[in-house]
Amino acid sequence: VNKTYYFEDLTVGLILRSSSPRRMEAERIKSFAREFDPQPAHLDEAAASSTPFGQLVASGWHTAAATMRLVLDVLPIAEGGQGLGLDKLTWTRPVLPDDELRVEIKVLELRASRSRPDRGVVTLEITTLNQKDQPVQSHILRSLFPRRREQAANPGLA
Amino acid sequence: VNKTYYFEDLTVGLILRSSSPRRMEAERIKSFAREFDPQPAHLDEAAASSTPFGQLVASGWHTAAATMRLVLDVLPIAEGGQGLGLDKLTWTRPVLPDDELRVEIKVLELRASRSRPDRGVVTLEITTLNQKDQPVQSHILRSLFPRRREQAANPGLA
Repeated sequence: VNKTYYFEDLTVGLILRSSSPRRMEAERIKSFAREFDPQPAHLDEAAASSTPFGQLVASGWHTAAATMRLVLDVLPIAEGGQGLGLDKLTWTRPVLPDDELRVEIKVLELRASRSRPDRGVVTLEITTLNQKDQPVQSHILRSLFPRRREQAANPGLA
Repeated sequence: VNKTYYFEDLTVGLILRSSSPRRMEAERIKSFAREFDPQPAHLDEAAASSTPFGQLVASGWHTAAATMRLVLDVLPIAEGGQGLGLDKLTWTRPVLPDDELRVEIKVLELRASRSRPDRGVVTLEITTLNQKDQPVQSHILRSLFPRRREQAANPGLA
């Protein structure tokens, strides 16, 4: 059984790294693009060759979704989290077919939820890197994590 | 042939609205979650019933990807754009099975690219709404749009 994380399991400054990379297959890059981001650079090699990228590259939204999966691989949220939003997402480098992505997560901030005593707000800095350790995406994610029940029940800790 | 947009076709304050909504099917919500965001609220109805949502809801990353498709439906970028990044993405309300999403896009800022005379940086405020006209997501997207060649060739307009 994998460890899952409650709010109390995190500390500011904690760094987590995914262990198994995620390969961005050319066929999935193209099928994701057909459904969600049908632009020449993502749809097929021939169309992509005449774009500024000069070759097929993954949609940034595909990279973002793959990143979420990598985050959950290393930081599975007990009972499931609730995404609140994100900031400062930048795509810093193209993601190419067969790139193998991994993530580094840093816990930036932890605070109790004002409205939900059974939840805590977790702010994470997430960097997605390729197999050459080059960053391809970074963003700040805010998510509600569940608190352990015994803690949530103690008003002194709320 | 649909109109496609160059940098010069946009003006600050311009508002565009998608015409055909995009339905969020339960099966696609679940398959997207299995691949990218395997948390109980997104994976199946039974698991979702014991989450704070009380029912199946779409992954925020699924909503974000669907939003990109809606943006391109109403604002197809000539020759394809290049996403630079995004800010202030918030998921304001759960997206439920069979919700029909649409987008409203406002052009916030236009500026020439310093490094790329053939491109312009476009900043868009994008609101995703459901069939009850309730916002479910909003974000700010920055993207490089191509400039018309005759304009890019004129240094007075760069």
